[in-house]
Amino acid sequence: MQTIGFISPPSWFDPSPAEFPTVCAKAVQVQQCPLSLPELDWRIDSIARTEPELIAAARTLGEMGCSLVANVGTPFAWAGLASVTEARARQERLALAAGAPVVMSGIAIIEAFAALGARRIGLACTYYSDDWRDRWARLVAASGVDVVSAQNLAGQGLMPPHDDADRAYWAPTAEQIGESVRRLAETAPQIEAIAVSGAGSRTLALIPALEREIDRPVFGSDTALYWAAAKAAGVALKPGILGRLTDAC
Amino acid sequence: MQTIGFISPPSWFDPSPAEFPTVCAKAVQVQQCPLSLPELDWRIDSIARTEPELIAAARTLGEMGCSLVANVGTPFAWAGLASVTEARARQERLALAAGAPVVMSGIAIIEAFAALGARRIGLACTYYSDDWRDRWARLVAASGVDVVSAQNLAGQGLMPPHDDADRAYWAPTAEQIGESVRRLAETAPQIEAIAVSGAGSRTLALIPALEREIDRPVFGSDTALYWAAAKAAGVALKPGILGRLTDAC
Repeated sequence: MQTIGFISPPSWFDPSPAEFPTVCAKAVQVQQCPLSLPELDWRIDSIARTEPELIAAARTLGEMGCSLVANVGTPFAWAGLASVTEARARQERLALAAGAPVVMSGIAIIEAFAALGARRIGLACTYYSDDWRDRWARLVAASGVDVVSAQNLAGQGLMPPHDDADRAYWAPTAEQIGESVRRLAETAPQIEAIAVSGAGSRTLALIPALEREIDRPVFGSDTALYWAAAKAAGVALKPGILGRLTDAC
Repeated sequence: MQTIGFISPPSWFDPSPAEFPTVCAKAVQVQQCPLSLPELDWRIDSIARTEPELIAAARTLGEMGCSLVANVGTPFAWAGLASVTEARARQERLALAAGAPVVMSGIAIIEAFAALGARRIGLACTYYSDDWRDRWARLVAASGVDVVSAQNLAGQGLMPPHDDADRAYWAPTAEQIGESVRRLAETAPQIEAIAVSGAGSRTLALIPALEREIDRPVFGSDTALYWAAAKAAGVALKPGILGRLTDAC
C-alpha cells in the first residue's frame, strides 16, 4: 500500500491527511509532519526562508517510510522564487531529502491548468493579501499561461482588508469562496479555468456545484494537490471526485 | 470536535493517528507530529535525552489546535527516570508546552493496571532487548505493582537475540505476540493482567481472542494509549473495542 506523507504548514490544523484517503479509489496510508515554525510572520519573504524546514520534514517523512511526500500550503513551493522552474528545483531538493517523489500544492496548481489545457486562467486568491495575490499571479504568469484576473476576497468586498498575518480571515466560508469564484467568472468571461488558493479555503465539497454553475473547470489548492499526489503515487481517484480535474492528465 | 495530536517515534510509520478514530464511538480529528531524530541509536540512555524534542513536538501540536496530545512509544515517557512520578512530571512539562493535556503510552500502561485493579502483573516486552525489558520492569515495579514476570520474545525463544537498535525485529507477527502472552500467562498463573509493550507490536485486533484464551485482561501500549486518550478527551469508546480495559476507570 502507498504511504503518502503530508508536510503541513505551521500552527494550523491540516485536514489533508484525513481528507486525501477519502478521494482515493483504493486504500492508502498517510503520515504527517507539520513545520515547526511558531514565529513565522507569514510574509512571503519569510516563507521564502523556510526551505531548510521543508527539507527536514521531507527527510523525516522519508525515514517514516513514505513513498510520496505532499506539501500543503501554496507559497512554500514558490516563495522567494521567480519561476515554476525554480519551484520545481526546490521540489527536487525535497525529493532528494525524502528519498521519494514530492508534490507541492503551488506547483500542482500550475500543472493542473496545463493538464486541463487552460491557457487563459483566473486566480481566486481568497484570503491572500494584495502582496501574496500579486506575487502568486506573477509566478503563475511566469509559467506561460495568461492570468486574466487574480482577485482576493478583500478586493472583491467579500472580506475586510487585512495583513498577511491576520489569521482570523484564513477560514473563508463556502459562501465566500463560491461568491468569489462566481464574480471572477463573471468579470472575466474569457477565463477557461479557475484555481482557488489558500490552504484554509477548502474546496473539495464545493467543486461539482461551482463547475456546473460557471461551466468551466474549478479546482482548489487542496484538490490540485490531491490530484497531483494520486497521479504521482499511481493511485486511482474516485470517479469525478475532483470535478473536471479528476481525469485530466 | 476533539482534535488529538500524536507525537510519533522517529523513523517509523505510526498507525496510531489512523487507528485511534476507529476505536472512538464518535468522530474525532487527528494530527501528527513525528520526532525528527534520524540519528537516534535507540539506547534507553539516548531516548532519555529526547525530552527537548518531545517538548517541541507538543508545542507544535498545541499550536495546530490540538485539544489533547498523545505520545506513542513507551520509553519516551520514562527513559532516564526512576519512577512514574518523575514520568508524570515529564508529561506535565509537555502539557505546559502544548497548552493542552498530554497522555503518554508509558504512563498509560501503568494507569491501566491500576484501573483494572491488577496488583500482580506480567509484562510481555516483545522485541525489547534485555536492557529495555529490565529497565521497563523496574519502572513499572516502582509504581507499586508486583511485576511477577517480564519476558521478551528473544528470551522466550520466539525471536533471535538482537541489539536495541536492530529494527528488523520491531514488527512481531500476531502469532509471536499471542504466543508470548500465552507463555507469560502459563509460566506465571498468579498474574492478574498482562501489558504488551513495543509500539511496533500491534495488539488492537488481538485483544478479545487473547483475553478469552487466558481469561485475564490483556492490553498493549497501543490500546492503553487509546484508552488514556479517550478518557482524557472525554470521548466514548466503542463498546468492548479495547477488551476488558474499555470500561475500566
